[in-house]
Parts: sequence; structure tokens; C-alpha cells
Amino acid sequence: MSVTVADVEAARRTIAGRVLRTPMLPAPKLSALTGAEVYVKYENLQVTNSFKERGALNKLASLNELARARGVIAMSAGNHAQAVAYHAARLGIPATIVMPVTTPFVKVEATEAYQAEVVLDGETVSEAQMRAEALARERRLTWVHPYDDPLVIAGQGSIALEMLEDAPALDMLVIPIGGGGLIAGNAVAARARKPSIEIIGAEAALYPSFWNTLRGENRPLGGPTLAEGIAVKNVGVLALPIVRELVAEIVLVDEAHLERAVYAYLTLQKTMAEGAGAAGLAAMLVKPEKFRGRKVGLILCGGNIDPRILASVMVRELEREDRIVSFRLTIPDRPGVLGQIATRLGELGANILEVDHRRLFLDVPAKGAKLDVTVETRGQVHGEEIFEALEAEGYQPVWIDTATTME
Amino acid sequence: MSVTVADVEAARRTIAGRVLRTPMLPAPKLSALTGAEVYVKYENLQVTNSFKERGALNKLASLNELARARGVIAMSAGNHAQAVAYHAARLGIPATIVMPVTTPFVKVEATEAYQAEVVLDGETVSEAQMRAEALARERRLTWVHPYDDPLVIAGQGSIALEMLEDAPALDMLVIPIGGGGLIAGNAVAARARKPSIEIIGAEAALYPSFWNTLRGENRPLGGPTLAEGIAVKNVGVLALPIVRELVAEIVLVDEAHLERAVYAYLTLQKTMAEGAGAAGLAAMLVKPEKFRGRKVGLILCGGNIDPRILASVMVRELEREDRIVSFRLTIPDRPGVLGQIATRLGELGANILEVDHRRLFLDVPAKGAKLDVTVETRGQVHGEEIFEALEAEGYQPVWIDTATTME
Repeated sequence: MSVTVADVEAARRTIAGRVLRTPMLPAPKLSALTGAEVYVKYENLQVTNSFKERGALNKLASLNELARARGVIAMSAGNHAQAVAYHAARLGIPATIVMPVTTPFVKVEATEAYQAEVVLDGETVSEAQMRAEALARERRLTWVHPYDDPLVIAGQGSIALEMLEDAPALDMLVIPIGGGGLIAGNAVAARARKPSIEIIGAEAALYPSFWNTLRGENRPLGGPTLAEGIAVKNVGVLALPIVRELVAEIVLVDEAHLERAVYAYLTLQKTMAEGAGAAGLAAMLVKPEKFRGRKVGLILCGGNIDPRILASVMVRELEREDRIVSFRLTIPDRPGVLGQIATRLGELGANILEVDHRRLFLDVPAKGAKLDVTVETRGQVHGEEIFEALEAEGYQPVWIDTATTME
Repeated sequence: MSVTVADVEAARRTIAGRVLRTPMLPAPKLSALTGAEVYVKYENLQVTNSFKERGALNKLASLNELARARGVIAMSAGNHAQAVAYHAARLGIPATIVMPVTTPFVKVEATEAYQAEVVLDGETVSEAQMRAEALARERRLTWVHPYDDPLVIAGQGSIALEMLEDAPALDMLVIPIGGGGLIAGNAVAARARKPSIEIIGAEAALYPSFWNTLRGENRPLGGPTLAEGIAVKNVGVLALPIVRELVAEIVLVDEAHLERAVYAYLTLQKTMAEGAGAAGLAAMLVKPEKFRGRKVGLILCGGNIDPRILASVMVRELEREDRIVSFRLTIPDRPGVLGQIATRLGELGANILEVDHRRLFLDVPAKGAKLDVTVETRGQVHGEEIFEALEAEGYQPVWIDTATTME
């Protein structure tokens, strides 16, 4: 294999003291949620909030004086961009980061904050990639690949060494898969340290590139996903043989489970995971029987989620739990009815969040009006009680979906 | 003083291995935000997500067989309740927790999850307190006070011992003040270990009990605060002399700065702080000149914030940054206008989140209609550009405040 545990150990020495040795802690509430004994490795606490610094720094540190003077280049709109920019700046190496023109402004800003030159070029990722390759040749810059480089893979593998030092009894590691650099490095390191450990990959169901390749399937790839950090259409050339040999199983995670996992990290573990960072936990929620009773290590590999998207996930999850519900009521169009309903909802213990009184809309019968009320409840059972009480009072309630409010 | 560093050291030995030795990490993005060199102690990673376990366990561990068999009682609707319930259950001690009848259902549930008997009684905190005292006498239960107990104060102080071991160069600690147990224990421990260290208290501006007592002022106490964990109207009897002697200054933190601090922890540090947990950071934002250039240790003392409130804080902060803005437009009431506006907003790089088209409302002039649009922008300057462009097109835009959407 292209990467050995000796490479990972060397990487660990190289990056020691310059990349955070992140906390690895038991997560009792996630254990209660999943039925497994869960430990979390908080890579979201790195300076740029993802594990990508490990591989990027290991690569940068390997460059000779001449290569450092010329500078490095990477193509990424995400965590790899910030990791390369941050450590290049620390080492005094000029960094050029190419991103597609459609990249959200906040990601450009976050990378420029570390003094990198950001080049916006190409409508798509592959166009940006071609432009970056041309630029690399033209300016004689060293390419820092996000995953298809032995030094990058070895750097990522340092995570598993730390995890097994802190929790030697682990039975399994569940690791997100995009291009495969993270899982490959950690599979090599973990299986060398503890041959019995089982490595499970968590891949986005919308981007099943390793799944397809390993199983000879041809599932479609693409679409918007919360786990953009692992939305990769190709398998890493170096990672593939490692994954084939050392990874026991790949679990595909759909968007609903990714959202639930992000929400669980936030509300139960009080930490912020991006979609890709929560993919391992999502895999546990998809296949709980696989993990029940086992000691499972999760790599929370990144925390860079847009606050607006996080707010939207939170509101949707609260609705899924029926802690926020909306009804459309039909009410007689006379004074005082709104007050009566509000009072009745108060008696029922429902906290009114929003009222929309559409008495002037065309679809309202002449003698009545529609009232949309959104209330906070104590959960599903309470929501149903409120519904029944409103029905008993003759308001003809209809459940409506308000998730769209935040979307 | 009622608590010495020897008491804190004893407490630390008592709770070792049963309460998490939480991570203490540099927070470079909070350093960039404040101009200080910031370190964060993550007490929100405790099992019940607050520091309260330290004091509660130190108290519980001190009880003899008879007292353990009879059981303990506490009055709290918050973190102290969960801390007592959790460690009592672990030690096989029956726990009774009294909460006011108005306590949100989720807090009751969280405490019952640890097998405690929750008694809902009393309309107010002081009524609940009286009921709890009566119950304690009646059932001969040991009282576990949230702050006015030397064993509880000594337990909390173990945090500072860990912080100074991990970061001996700290110049200051900024510590939230409610009843004063947290700051008293940590002031004793920190000043004993490092006499030059400066201890700053962060008190909610709506509950300035220590501020009033120490300065002889009479500011009003009360009102709804995001920092409910430190919304305490009385000063701790044991804490007061310690605070008077060892605390250099108290900074009052208003609600806007508490919100900003919760948001900064979430988006910059990827961790969830409740209002009280973020009070130390809020104090740094209130008085940045006091901390600039210094090595500052923050105790992120709790992470139990209602997800709905957090979502609301997030949306409000995005609006404050003008990353979400809303305009009310006056538009000619003819087909195709909505499409024109949407296209124009797209050209301007504004991402449309919500459109409310009120053509049938009574306050609309006969030949026009009102259109409320909410868009995501790249920040304040971008928001103003969009406003000016809409004005130039004759839509008479008016800024509107949409923070209420989530409230």
C-alpha cells in the first residue's frame, strides 16, 4: 500500500505541536441515543475547524526551500482551502487557492483571512480544477491535493493514533468518506495498532462513489447535500486499494439522517458539526443494529456549517419532534374569536409563536376566515392533544408544514 | 474565608475520575475577535453539560451512610438539578428536586431522566424554595445548595486548578457570577496558585446583585434574560466575602452582548454555550480595552440552551450582521413584476429567502401592492447596495425588521 503506519507515525511527529491534539471524550448522551458506547474525537476544534490541517501541514512541511519559495496551490472551496492557507501563512509559504466562481462569499473571505491569494475561476469544480492545474504549471507551484497524496493521507491518519491512545478498548471507528484520504490514513494507522478494530465508512447517499466502485454498482452521483465536504464524485486513486483491503463496510447516509446527526451533536453534545462531520453519527442512526453494544469511535471531522443552514436544520428538527407545530383553523369572522383561541391555546400549555390571520384572502368563505397558528408544544403527544381540543371546539384544524419558513 | 485552597485540592481528589477533566484549549478566533489571547475551559462537555457536577458531587461524596440512605433534596430548575440528579443516581442516593410549577417541560424531563423525583410546586422560585425546605425537614433529606455551601464552592474551584495546570501563563480569569459559588471557588484556587492572576466577574446587567452589594448601589433586579443560569437576586452568603477580597472587578453584561457571545462561541468556536455560559466572553465584548493583549481564561460553564432560543439568537445575529435583510416594496399591480424583481435580486447576488405578497390587504393603494422580500446578503455593504438598486428601480424600498419571525 502507498501509505504505511510508519508514514503515519512520521507525520504525527512532523505536525506535533502545530496541529491541535484534539480532545477525545466519551459521549454518554450519544451512547444513550444509539445503544453503543460512543467516543467522539473533536477535530472541529482545530484552528480552521477541520481535520484537513493534519494532511496539509504534513505535505507543506515536506517541501524544500525552493519549493517553499515558489509557493503552493490547491483547488478547494472548503476546509482544505482554509487548512492550506493557514499553515502556508504560518510557514511563510505563498499559497494560491482556486475556487469555482459560484463559491459562497463567506468561504472566500475565510480563506483570504489567512493571506492566501484566492482565484475565482470556472463555473464548475472540474473547470476550476483545470484552471488550477494550468496555473500550477505556469507559476511552478507545488500541488497540495486534498486527498490523493501519500503525505496528506499519512497526516490524516494521525487522528487514529491519538484515538487509540486515549481509548484503547475501541471496537470500531466510523469515518466519513469523500475522496477517501481521511478513512485511508486512519484505517492504516488503526488496523496496524489494533488489528481487530473494525473500520466503517460513512458515505453520502447522494455521492456513493466508493460504494459504486467497491460493489460494481452504478448509482447516480450528484445533488445538493448537507455533507458538501464529502460530496466527491471520484474515488481517490491512492485511497481505493486501502479502503478495499481495510474497510469492513460502507454505510450510505441520506440527508434526513445527516440533519438528525448535526442536530444531535448540537443539542446532546453541545458541539457544532457540519454535515460531513456528522456523517459517522448519521451512519450509526441509519444502521443502529450494527453498532449496538460496541465501543465506537467517531471522528467529528469538521464544524464549518453555514449558520443559516444550521438554523434551518434546527427549526426542521424541532418540527420533526413536533415541538413546533402549525394548524390552519377555520373561524367565524366576528370580533373576539382570535382572543378566544389564544386563551384556549394558553390553557392547553401551547406557546404561540406566530399567527397569520388571512381574513381578506380570496379562498376564504364569505362568513369565515382562515387562521394559521404556529405553537410550541412539549412534544408529539401534546401536539395531538392541542389538535383534538381545537377540533372539539369546532375550529376544523388542519396540520400544516412550516419547515419552509426558514428555508 | 470559609473555603481554602486545601479544600479545593481535597475536592479535586474526591471528584477525580467521576467528573470529566474538561479540555482547556486556545481559541484563536476568539482571540482575533477580542484582541486578547483567549483560552476556553469547556465545562459544557460534562455529562449534564455544566460545571455544576463538580460542586454537587463533592457535596454528595461527603455524606455518611445514614444521610445517603435518607436521600438529598435540591431546589433548581436548571443545571444544578441535573447535576445533583445524575451523581445521586450514580451513587445510589435518592434525590428529590423541587422546581416551580412554571418550569419548562424539557427541564423536568431532563432531570427525571436521571431517576430523580421531581416535585413541581410553587408559582415562584421563593415559593418553591419554601416548599423544598418543608419537604427537607419532613423527610429528613440533606440539602444540596446550588452555591451557599463550602463543599459546593470547593468543588467548583477545581476548574481553576486544571486551567492553571494547562495554561500557567494566564493573566486573568473571567467568570460568570450568579449566586457566586463558581467565582468564589475559582478565585480562592487561582489566587492561591498564582497570586498575580486577576479575577473578573461577569454578571447579568438585569441581575446585578453582587454589583449592588459591593458598590452600595440599588439597581433594579429582574426581567427575562438569556443568562437564566446566573439570574440570581441574592448574593451567596459564603461567596460574598471571598468575592469582596479576591475579585478585581465585576462587568455587567447586557442581553445584546450575551446574544453576541453565544453566537460567537457557536460560529467561531463551534461550541454551544447557554447565556450564562457565554457571560465571560460577553464581558470581554462589553469592555474590550480591559482585556486587550492579556492572556485570558474563560470558563464556558454551561451549554444547556433551548434549541428554539438558540435558533432565534442565530437568526437575530445574522440580521444584525445584515446577512439577512428584509425590505417592503411598493410595486405596480400588474403581471410580471414579481418576476422582474426576483430576477433583479438574482443579478445583485441576493439570495431570496422569503416573499410575502400582500396584494389583497386593505392598506394597499388601489393601483399598487406591497411586497415584503427577505434576502440573504454578503453583509452590510451588500445589503445597502441592494437597497439602493431597488430604490433606483422605483420600488420605494423600506427596511423592515424580521427578527420577530423566529421569536
